[in-house]
Amino acid sequence: MEKMEYDVVILGGVAAGTSAAASAKRINKNLKIAIFQKEPYISYGGCGLPYVISGDVSSPEAVIALTPDIFKEKKGADVFVKHEAYEIDFSNKIVYIKSEEGEKEVSYNKLVISTGASPIIPPFQAWGEKGIFKLRNPDDAKNILNFIKEENPEKAIIIGGGFIGIETAEALKKHGIEITIIEGMDHILGNIEPEIHEEFIHGIREKGVNVVFNTFAKDVIKENGVFKVITEDNEYTGDMVIISIGVKPNTLFLKDKGLNLAKNGAIIVNEKMETNINNVYAAGDCATVNHFITGKNVYIPLGTTANKQGRIAGKNLAGGNDSFIGVVGSLITKFEDIEYAKTGLTLQEAINEGFNAEAVFIKSGSKAHYYKGSKKLKIKLVFEKKTGRILGAQFVGGEIHPRLNAITSLIYTNGTVDKLRNMDLAYSPPFSPVWDIDLVAANQAIKKI
Amino acid sequence: MEKMEYDVVILGGVAAGTSAAASAKRINKNLKIAIFQKEPYISYGGCGLPYVISGDVSSPEAVIALTPDIFKEKKGADVFVKHEAYEIDFSNKIVYIKSEEGEKEVSYNKLVISTGASPIIPPFQAWGEKGIFKLRNPDDAKNILNFIKEENPEKAIIIGGGFIGIETAEALKKHGIEITIIEGMDHILGNIEPEIHEEFIHGIREKGVNVVFNTFAKDVIKENGVFKVITEDNEYTGDMVIISIGVKPNTLFLKDKGLNLAKNGAIIVNEKMETNINNVYAAGDCATVNHFITGKNVYIPLGTTANKQGRIAGKNLAGGNDSFIGVVGSLITKFEDIEYAKTGLTLQEAINEGFNAEAVFIKSGSKAHYYKGSKKLKIKLVFEKKTGRILGAQFVGGEIHPRLNAITSLIYTNGTVDKLRNMDLAYSPPFSPVWDIDLVAANQAIKKI
Repeated sequence: MEKMEYDVVILGGVAAGTSAAASAKRINKNLKIAIFQKEPYISYGGCGLPYVISGDVSSPEAVIALTPDIFKEKKGADVFVKHEAYEIDFSNKIVYIKSEEGEKEVSYNKLVISTGASPIIPPFQAWGEKGIFKLRNPDDAKNILNFIKEENPEKAIIIGGGFIGIETAEALKKHGIEITIIEGMDHILGNIEPEIHEEFIHGIREKGVNVVFNTFAKDVIKENGVFKVITEDNEYTGDMVIISIGVKPNTLFLKDKGLNLAKNGAIIVNEKMETNINNVYAAGDCATVNHFITGKNVYIPLGTTANKQGRIAGKNLAGGNDSFIGVVGSLITKFEDIEYAKTGLTLQEAINEGFNAEAVFIKSGSKAHYYKGSKKLKIKLVFEKKTGRILGAQFVGGEIHPRLNAITSLIYTNGTVDKLRNMDLAYSPPFSPVWDIDLVAANQAIKKI
Repeated sequence: MEKMEYDVVILGGVAAGTSAAASAKRINKNLKIAIFQKEPYISYGGCGLPYVISGDVSSPEAVIALTPDIFKEKKGADVFVKHEAYEIDFSNKIVYIKSEEGEKEVSYNKLVISTGASPIIPPFQAWGEKGIFKLRNPDDAKNILNFIKEENPEKAIIIGGGFIGIETAEALKKHGIEITIIEGMDHILGNIEPEIHEEFIHGIREKGVNVVFNTFAKDVIKENGVFKVITEDNEYTGDMVIISIGVKPNTLFLKDKGLNLAKNGAIIVNEKMETNINNVYAAGDCATVNHFITGKNVYIPLGTTANKQGRIAGKNLAGGNDSFIGVVGSLITKFEDIEYAKTGLTLQEAINEGFNAEAVFIKSGSKAHYYKGSKKLKIKLVFEKKTGRILGAQFVGGEIHPRLNAITSLIYTNGTVDKLRNMDLAYSPPFSPVWDIDLVAANQAIKKI
């Protein structure tokens, strides 16, 4: 077995791993760093993959920021692709790696685990057949695009209505494919306010998307070239199937090794990205993250957080001292012109966390009412009853991003509805009504305090 | 002289006046309220007028929210249009009003002065001729539109490159009119960061707009149907002229009456919209406003502020108790696809206010770099060196509104660049890069602290 030695070993080289390498090198350029990556590429924007399929991104390769060679040249870290860690000896600080070339025994001084997460694939009979996909890496996007080109599918079944499910639905619809989304819960898009959900569902159904709730896919089979998704009391047929029911951290090889893991297998880290084992850091979709409002460790795997956590892990292991402020669960997506966003807590989440919370639900326009192209949008604003502290907001409609960013910023600064209600959010008819929806919501909220 | 008696007399009924009436009525519906308005209409969105000319608003009437009759019916206040106050006897609480029907002597218990502001028109010889305009009310927009239709002008000279000047330039360009902007200072758009200004000017020049700096229009004459704008050392000819060099508060009739006025004539109000005279409130473009950062009274006449001040004045005079949080000087505008925005202080303004201020200038994209249609945008972020407190930001480019609103919110909550640099601003490729420009700027800023 080949033996190697590095100051810093990084397992996984997508968002968190490459960020960690780059930031460690900025602190100490003499560090000898190696990234071991299971897939044949590193440094790609997984969130862009649905848009590869829709054509909003030119090609699967376009989401790859840096090749291993260029990364090595620019950032100064060794990169080994198609190399997978299968065992770690934390006491002796050795990682065991397998690859087509054989096995490697790599000793480290500092270790970053950034192995990411993988889609959950139930044991469907049809899995492995042509035409049934997950969407997680550029190859998946390539396979889907090739399938569409070659097979010209007319109907797709999407199992799971999370963000990837909705974004892939939008993408496939652009190819003229009829979409059915099968969702196990009574709502899509995770924890979402009922009023906001109703609006979003109404919108995508109007655009011709079929959505079925409370329906678990028990199996998927392929018969005579057609997929059948079998549920408790029904069957749904389609020419292709996308499985998007969620992801699980790639931490199976770390079980029972003394590393603290959350229930779902995510590595528990503190705000410095330290695990419970000395000199071992974790970051990205394989790790938990601190929540700014609740102070709890949560699992919200997102590329933007992976980048931040990776940067902080790299800084700290290289001798820096940085902490992550934490997430507030901000999310934004769209289905054609219907945008959806969340930041902070939903009313139910806030109540579950012990807040004496209240909410208002407001409809408005995105521009001055008389300005052409003003879009409808809605907000549900969640706040603490006693103090007026803003705890969260959800949005649906058009041009929601400016309104979202204001609320996110206020959450991080303990802003209140009293402060928000007369805030000087820049006004001009092409950009907003004279009373922006955030201000209207705050003015209604203040009456409930 | 007809005598009238009201609980509340409101002078001026555009944004502040109508807001004051409506909010006073919400607090105490028994109040007898009269609005006296010089113009033939009330309750219009002056900021929409350039877009009436561009066609983004369907007609001059579309910016009028409520007619006098409907306002009276809905809000319960009497409305007298084409009625102008020309004298106030503060000791006896009487306002003298003139109209075509004669004069009125109106006694009040509470008075709101919301007479707005008027464009400054220098004593140009050509003023009054057909083809030379201001743009302040719906009639002005109508006159400009009629002139374009009837005369088919090819060249317009815009005197003054403020917001109205720029927005009117955009509007006239939509009609195929060649634009020259004559600006007295070495920059347009008021207090603006040099880097941001350079980008904006470069952009509009590329679109064919002529801009001349450091050039005062000494006179405008009309000869053989052509306007000549005469400057120190040059002449500019055009088929039409727009005068947009700024506004002055409509307070001339209030001079030397014991009412505290600022140097430019604006009525000095506190955060409750009270003047120095008991029972007399002022709001909107005729009044000063408190600045959230500096605590000073400033003159920044904007429709959005007028609405807020009016609402607060109405509340307070009706027995409520509300204070205005103050403005931070937020502004947003655009010339076609080039957007410009400001919030808080420029670096120079911050230094002038005594802050030990620093700034960073950052370029980025509005979406993930691989996502089609990502727009270039730039930020100059101003912060306090010692504490990292965010003092202001300016933006130029595309899709700047979400980034602007985040900074505005942080200014109001004493947010710092340390807080901002890892904030969970929602990320998705169609909406932002994984590191949003605000975060990049904060990450650069933190190095200067």
